[in-house]
Amino acid sequence: MTQDDKTRIQVEIYNQTYTIVGEESAAHVRLVCGLVDQKMRDLKDNNQHLDTSRLAVLTAVNVMNDYLKLQEDYAKLQRTVEEKEDK
Amino acid sequence: MTQDDKTRIQVEIYNQTYTIVGEESAAHVRLVCGLVDQKMRDLKDNNQHLDTSRLAVLTAVNVMNDYLKLQEDYAKLQRTVEEKEDK
Repeated sequence: MTQDDKTRIQVEIYNQTYTIVGEESAAHVRLVCGLVDQKMRDLKDNNQHLDTSRLAVLTAVNVMNDYLKLQEDYAKLQRTVEEKEDK
Repeated sequence: MTQDDKTRIQVEIYNQTYTIVGEESAAHVRLVCGLVDQKMRDLKDNNQHLDTSRLAVLTAVNVMNDYLKLQEDYAKLQRTVEEKEDK
C-alpha cells in the first residue's frame, strides 16, 4: 500500500478542523466524524462544565463501551450459528 | 433506576482523573478506560505533535470507525443466520 492509495479528507469535529488520512471513502470518513461530533455535543449538553479535552476522552470511553457490548453480541450470535451447524 | 444503583468509579486516562458514573461493574469500567488510555498512547507514539484534545478526538474517531465495521460484520452474520433459517 503506497501513500497514493490513501485519501486525505478535511473534516470539522467540535469546531476544530482535522485532516484524516486513510483508505476509507470520503463519505465513510464524514459519517464517522459526524457521529463523533454529535456524541460530543450530546455529552456537552448534559455536562456543561466539561472542557473539550475531557469531553473527547469521555466520548471515546462511551464509544469503546458500545464497541465492547457489540463485540459480546457478535460472539453470542456466532455461538448460535455454530450450535445450529452442529445440529 | 435510582442514583443508588449507579457506581462511581475513579479512573485515570492519559494522566487525567475521571469519575465515571454508570451501571457497569468497576472491572468493566476499568477495562474500557484502560483500552482508551492505550489507544491514546499508541496514537501519540505516531503523532508526537498532537495535543491531548486532538488526540482524544482522533481516538474517538478510530473507535467509532471500528464500531461501524463491527456493526457491518454483525449485520452480515445476522443475514447468514436468517438465510439458514429460511432453508
